[in-house]
Amino acid sequence: MSTQAAHPALLIPGPIEFDDAVLQSMSHFSESHVGPGFVATFGETLSMLRQLFQTTDPASQPFILSGSGTLGWDLVSANLIEPGEDALVLSTGYFGDSFADCLATYGAKPTKLEGPIGGRPQFPEIEKALSEKKYKLVTVTHVDTSTGVVSDLKGLVQAVKKVSPETLVIADGVCSVACEEIAFDDWGLDGVITASQKAIGCPAGLSISMFSGRAMETFKNRKSPPASYFASMKNWTPIMQNYEAKKPSYFATPSPQLVHALNTALKQILARPLSERFQKHKEVSDKIKKAVSDLGLQIVATKPEDQSHAMTAIYLPEGVQIADVLPKLGSKGVIFAGGLHKAIATKYIRFGHMGVSVTDPNRNDVDKALDALKTSLAECGYTKA
Amino acid sequence: MSTQAAHPALLIPGPIEFDDAVLQSMSHFSESHVGPGFVATFGETLSMLRQLFQTTDPASQPFILSGSGTLGWDLVSANLIEPGEDALVLSTGYFGDSFADCLATYGAKPTKLEGPIGGRPQFPEIEKALSEKKYKLVTVTHVDTSTGVVSDLKGLVQAVKKVSPETLVIADGVCSVACEEIAFDDWGLDGVITASQKAIGCPAGLSISMFSGRAMETFKNRKSPPASYFASMKNWTPIMQNYEAKKPSYFATPSPQLVHALNTALKQILARPLSERFQKHKEVSDKIKKAVSDLGLQIVATKPEDQSHAMTAIYLPEGVQIADVLPKLGSKGVIFAGGLHKAIATKYIRFGHMGVSVTDPNRNDVDKALDALKTSLAECGYTKA
Repeated sequence: MSTQAAHPALLIPGPIEFDDAVLQSMSHFSESHVGPGFVATFGETLSMLRQLFQTTDPASQPFILSGSGTLGWDLVSANLIEPGEDALVLSTGYFGDSFADCLATYGAKPTKLEGPIGGRPQFPEIEKALSEKKYKLVTVTHVDTSTGVVSDLKGLVQAVKKVSPETLVIADGVCSVACEEIAFDDWGLDGVITASQKAIGCPAGLSISMFSGRAMETFKNRKSPPASYFASMKNWTPIMQNYEAKKPSYFATPSPQLVHALNTALKQILARPLSERFQKHKEVSDKIKKAVSDLGLQIVATKPEDQSHAMTAIYLPEGVQIADVLPKLGSKGVIFAGGLHKAIATKYIRFGHMGVSVTDPNRNDVDKALDALKTSLAECGYTKA
Repeated sequence: MSTQAAHPALLIPGPIEFDDAVLQSMSHFSESHVGPGFVATFGETLSMLRQLFQTTDPASQPFILSGSGTLGWDLVSANLIEPGEDALVLSTGYFGDSFADCLATYGAKPTKLEGPIGGRPQFPEIEKALSEKKYKLVTVTHVDTSTGVVSDLKGLVQAVKKVSPETLVIADGVCSVACEEIAFDDWGLDGVITASQKAIGCPAGLSISMFSGRAMETFKNRKSPPASYFASMKNWTPIMQNYEAKKPSYFATPSPQLVHALNTALKQILARPLSERFQKHKEVSDKIKKAVSDLGLQIVATKPEDQSHAMTAIYLPEGVQIADVLPKLGSKGVIFAGGLHKAIATKYIRFGHMGVSVTDPNRNDVDKALDALKTSLAECGYTKA
């Protein structure tokens, strides 16, 4: 039985389409989570994350936990900041707002800087905010899945280092890791949290993250204990270090099948230069943006430099309803997502273009989607003005 | 390629051996977490949990979250008890102790009642403790994976109702759900948390739980907000209710593949009467206990009524080392686990007997394991005194 039996192309901004070999790894026979076979696989997977994030600093610490991408926010909020401390949250949509909620849950005091819808906070206002108060950390959503706005991580770290060098810079890379460039060491990032089911191309169920030596020192110097149990770096750090050293270790049972699938996905990604992968995502994204523009449609991320290469959020033409266009796309074998940003949710759709749909030359997902979009809009009565 | 390619029989107390159909479900093609196909699967899976836990009360609330079984402790500790409130933790090994640590992380005040190693706290002392202080909840490890001691949930609820009827009774059923009887409504339980990879027979990566209407009311009446973000009932309850009503909903991305595998595993379990399943686990466990005793070995759970039907923790004979016997078992295609309870960790091994290894007549796992145990001990120089 082929697991990839005929099915529509899933082109939402995650979960994405998965490669056959990755899905087959999900069916791996049962193994002990502390047996030598799985320990070697898990250890190798952790080490491959260092390559994916482009960090060679041995003090950098990768984590792979069973959970959703959201669990990464808990990892940051319960370990790297203490109750009463301030966090500056740069928000470009739904996910920035939610990260602030998570920080507040664990007692931190988030201050939100929001861009206009489809835009992002600008460096002068970020620098001003940082100069007015001492922030333990700054969080930024690299690509906000609700808007498709990409933030400039490299520029952000430079701005923070200039005004408030002791502030940690933490990026939510759920919708960016493995498709947008992230040079962890070179850029001076302190943390990137992500999930398995987007550009990494492994089914959902893993929270994946990388923290700098400086972030780990910040954790070790906490005055209060970690504010979460399952998301405690105290509980997990020795486990991750042991697995990477190929030593069995136990805090909570990891998912061998998901880790096998992640191992396969990372091997596929790292078999080619990362720069090539990022370039391919950029080219395909540029092509999609042009096609959307040629159709006379507006992109939610207003300025070209704010548009991510992972996805495109597209305003529907006046009079076209999401409830009409999504089923029409579906009947053509293409699945897009509806809107998520509360203020504009009914007015736009989201097209994810990550992973094998972009990199596998044997797939026709993107062209099929662009054709389906054009035809579906025409069926909804839309003609370019 | 068969996913079940020749491999040793995994007979540790979880993860267990998985059925082929369950593993094949892990490779399901990618689906949207909010598309009608997956929403129906997730909704059906939640409803099947009601049957598994034997609850027909519509106020009972099931949860399926991406995470390890451990996440269930966070769910309880961050939602059903508030900072400063007391919890009585009945400990029969490693897992009871850790549940207490989790409760303390979120500000509750755990009081531990421990049995002797291989035993459990007795009802008179539990009733005495409950009469001396007001406890918001009592936690009990149904089967402690570190010792194989089973607790009497039905008797415990009766004892609690007699002395402190307002106290919630929460069971850690990670190593008991789907092999030991749990009659959620009839016994009057308020919560049972478990994981996918033990007797339920689905790969690790899901935290699974059921809470009573009374527990959910306790949550709603909290004075303080939930103390976790990812494990917040406030964030998850509407999502679970929507999925079960077959309505799309989003807080954090679930794992469609793991949920498909759980769906398959639950359908297999519920295709036969649960009573038959529990009886089969009891029969096989009794046979194993007798064989172990016939070998002249001691079981960690001292009294027959304290011995779980999910696993058997077995003291090694004097002079036989774990590091010798486990590889000898491995060479015979059988994987057991070493000790986990700190006080006796080097002195015993653990034999898990749950799920298809017990219920599938086409498997020979248990007999193979008993033969391998006998031969391996003989190779280690042991002969019955």
